[in-house]
Amino acid sequence: MRLRVKWLTTASLVGTVLKYIAAAMVVPLAVSFIYMEDVWVFAVSAAATGLLAFALERLDPDPDMGPAEALLLVVVSWLAVALVGTIPYLLAGYGTPSALAHPVNALFESMSGFTTTGATVMGEISTDRHSHALMLWRQLTQWLGGMGIIVLMVAILPELAVNGAQLMKTEAPGPDLQKLTPRITQTARVLWIVYFGFTALLAVLLYALHLGGFAPNMTAYNAVAHAFSTLPTGGFSPEADSIAAFSAAVQWVIIPFMVVAGTNFALFWHLLDGDVRTLLNDPEFRVYAGAIAILTAILATLLYGGGAPPQELGGTTAGNTENALRQAAFQIGSLLNSTGFATSDFAQWDPAAQTLLLFTMFIGGSAGSTGGGIKVIRWIVVIKALRRELFRTARPSAIKPIRLGGYVIDEDVVRGITAFTLLYMVLFGVATVFFVLDSLRVGYELSTLEAMGASIATLGNIGPGFGSLGPFGSYTEFPFETKLMMVFLMWIGRLEIVPVLAVFTGAFWKR
Amino acid sequence: MRLRVKWLTTASLVGTVLKYIAAAMVVPLAVSFIYMEDVWVFAVSAAATGLLAFALERLDPDPDMGPAEALLLVVVSWLAVALVGTIPYLLAGYGTPSALAHPVNALFESMSGFTTTGATVMGEISTDRHSHALMLWRQLTQWLGGMGIIVLMVAILPELAVNGAQLMKTEAPGPDLQKLTPRITQTARVLWIVYFGFTALLAVLLYALHLGGFAPNMTAYNAVAHAFSTLPTGGFSPEADSIAAFSAAVQWVIIPFMVVAGTNFALFWHLLDGDVRTLLNDPEFRVYAGAIAILTAILATLLYGGGAPPQELGGTTAGNTENALRQAAFQIGSLLNSTGFATSDFAQWDPAAQTLLLFTMFIGGSAGSTGGGIKVIRWIVVIKALRRELFRTARPSAIKPIRLGGYVIDEDVVRGITAFTLLYMVLFGVATVFFVLDSLRVGYELSTLEAMGASIATLGNIGPGFGSLGPFGSYTEFPFETKLMMVFLMWIGRLEIVPVLAVFTGAFWKR
Ligand SMILES: [K+]
Ligand SMILES: [K+]
Repeated sequence: MRLRVKWLTTASLVGTVLKYIAAAMVVPLAVSFIYMEDVWVFAVSAAATGLLAFALERLDPDPDMGPAEALLLVVVSWLAVALVGTIPYLLAGYGTPSALAHPVNALFESMSGFTTTGATVMGEISTDRHSHALMLWRQLTQWLGGMGIIVLMVAILPELAVNGAQLMKTEAPGPDLQKLTPRITQTARVLWIVYFGFTALLAVLLYALHLGGFAPNMTAYNAVAHAFSTLPTGGFSPEADSIAAFSAAVQWVIIPFMVVAGTNFALFWHLLDGDVRTLLNDPEFRVYAGAIAILTAILATLLYGGGAPPQELGGTTAGNTENALRQAAFQIGSLLNSTGFATSDFAQWDPAAQTLLLFTMFIGGSAGSTGGGIKVIRWIVVIKALRRELFRTARPSAIKPIRLGGYVIDEDVVRGITAFTLLYMVLFGVATVFFVLDSLRVGYELSTLEAMGASIATLGNIGPGFGSLGPFGSYTEFPFETKLMMVFLMWIGRLEIVPVLAVFTGAFWKR
Repeated sequence: MRLRVKWLTTASLVGTVLKYIAAAMVVPLAVSFIYMEDVWVFAVSAAATGLLAFALERLDPDPDMGPAEALLLVVVSWLAVALVGTIPYLLAGYGTPSALAHPVNALFESMSGFTTTGATVMGEISTDRHSHALMLWRQLTQWLGGMGIIVLMVAILPELAVNGAQLMKTEAPGPDLQKLTPRITQTARVLWIVYFGFTALLAVLLYALHLGGFAPNMTAYNAVAHAFSTLPTGGFSPEADSIAAFSAAVQWVIIPFMVVAGTNFALFWHLLDGDVRTLLNDPEFRVYAGAIAILTAILATLLYGGGAPPQELGGTTAGNTENALRQAAFQIGSLLNSTGFATSDFAQWDPAAQTLLLFTMFIGGSAGSTGGGIKVIRWIVVIKALRRELFRTARPSAIKPIRLGGYVIDEDVVRGITAFTLLYMVLFGVATVFFVLDSLRVGYELSTLEAMGASIATLGNIGPGFGSLGPFGSYTEFPFETKLMMVFLMWIGRLEIVPVLAVFTGAFWKR
């Protein structure tokens, strides 16, 4: 049996990816010099990662990538990056009581970062306890992960024809990315510019609030740290209280940026050209924005009517229009597209509000954004496919293609999208049962809502769940087997599931 | 605009269906004479139903049914039957404090009966409170519903090519129903014989246990009543404590009959010929029996290890092998295929056990059985379709048909089955959120598990859920809007969803 995949080529290209990670470690290294904390940690991490990258690159001096090698590259590179991402955690944690000193915890935190999940196993989140450089590295992993996702979505998956990823490119309604710029790599570059621009804008706005006296604790460090985790729909924060640590002004500013993070970035490129109609006419954006508006209205009504007890962190929402609206808009804006920031401990809200949030978590971001989950464009196609099924039953002889923004969607794409959505549900269910049983095995009892929350929060790259896994909780109590399962879910969830599982089939490897 | 459906033809055929219901009302009428209770109720009910049936039949003296009329007949007849089924409840309840005196409650109970769901809105379930005839009518609605389902599944839906229903006929592996007997109506007759046979056998066995001294309260009335609701995977019982009211011997006898109720009845026809291999080699039966065995083993382990507090009804399972195994086998056997009987208040079990039961409820019965839900054959096709999706990603050029028992499954059937499964999940989610919000509106707080339980228990025609909707609870506290939504879910769930929703499309009615 010969392998049909040139895995040395893939390994060499993973080396190239790691080279960029080594270079990115210069950012926390610089921060470590500013605060004179953990300097050796990042010096060693960058050097070790760089050396590994160099060694891997030499495995194939002239890498020539086919589709199989590209698929393997996507799958392996996220794992390799998560693995080297543990180096700073392990070095800084060595000999301390930090949870990150354990390899499984470090891998969880690193995978959670690079997949922009934002679930944490850290006990005490604070720059008093951990160095500023380490906490910024944690934020940066999310921002780097977001950059990777953009390349993956617009440049790699569509070429591989993976479960409807094509839709996110050529057949996307409104902005035809192919027309934006002649080459795919340039398309990615355009989206990167949008991503960079919004990150910088958010950091500047947040720091301006601080300078203007509206956000006492939004230091320059915090402004950059939160910009780093907002645009990738990340959700990590160096503050234990997430965005609840900041003023209402900060919360209101972050809400539109979270909405942006889940919107197709290409639409903003059109905005720069003064073209507002493309954004407003985009079917996916309309559904995405409409869902946020409707769910916010429902949740705000629940909160205004007393659907949440008064909290130290979230304040009182009952009878308080501004706070009910702010808490509702923030949590929906955050959970719908998989960001995972919080301004209130929604794990203490009424069951009705929590149930609404649970189902909101199944929606996901838009194509061409950093949002995870099932994604709005897939739901649109799924609903059209289900309606067609009713139509076919009502009129068995009729043939009806599925259209989106005037284009006919290829039946293979429809099939891929319905299969993906179904696979997502099945994995959600299997993971939930796994978590419940594995936790019971070690005597840690999980409610159904907690188990479901853990499942969707990791598979959907959202981060926080419910109960003890709420936005101010931690995943640290889980047995290591469950944590490794979660690492797996974050990994496959971020890579649209099918590519990773396909690499695990015999058909991928055998001739 | 002309209607393309000859609705008068359908109305006339609905009349024919109602004629059989009027005839069936003679059974409780006879019982009412035995006990001299509610005689006028059933005399009037039978007469009124018969008159209505006669009037409807006259609407089209020479009914000639096409596919559209057949589809409409299926959809309308279940609703019409549920409506006339309320007559005894309303007449008997008139002027009493019985919940069934209210039309919405009566419709809920009647629809729950004829769809073999088994959810109840009755407060006090007892032949002291209600007449023996009325309680037997409630049991009989389930048995009649089961007969209807058999005709629907083998004779009508496959002809209409509804979401993979074809699979349940010609392409079914093992027993090719077409070959069993030359005509479809005869196929249905064969399955009816099996259904009749098992019903009679169970009634005789249960009464024999009574005569043998193993079941003091299993009177002839109870033996017949429970046989009436076991084979249709119904779940109603004239005892408030369901099967927990009876001895362990009764429980052990009912378990295999519940398993039978969810098995393809055609396989038993082969058994009568001495052909055991067809049963044992049937892919659906192997998965169905395997799932019951595995889930029972897991649940028994949980219960043995202390996963349930000692109860008056279910007894102590911790450290008690026989009881742990019995409770596990009974509840899995009951919930997996949508029966809904209970021998223990599983709503009081540990969250882990309840979560396991919740997911068990998504499996469903087999094709050619009276079991509801998604059904095992669909899961087999879905899993094969998902695996093929991985295969296609690993080897984009390969073409791979989906096979089942040596046959290639038509791609239209695969598409119909994946669409059905996805639609099922979407409806489950929408209904859950609806229940939570509607209940909150009237100040009745529902936990996520309770709302999900209500959703799957009605859409899947299972009956009991969790929390206050547990096996010994009642649906009576819900607002009427929620109850009507549940009536709708039971109705569409029992008719495989798509036929009902298709009738609601404009495409069905317009030329
Ligand atoms: K996230
Ligand atoms: K049932």
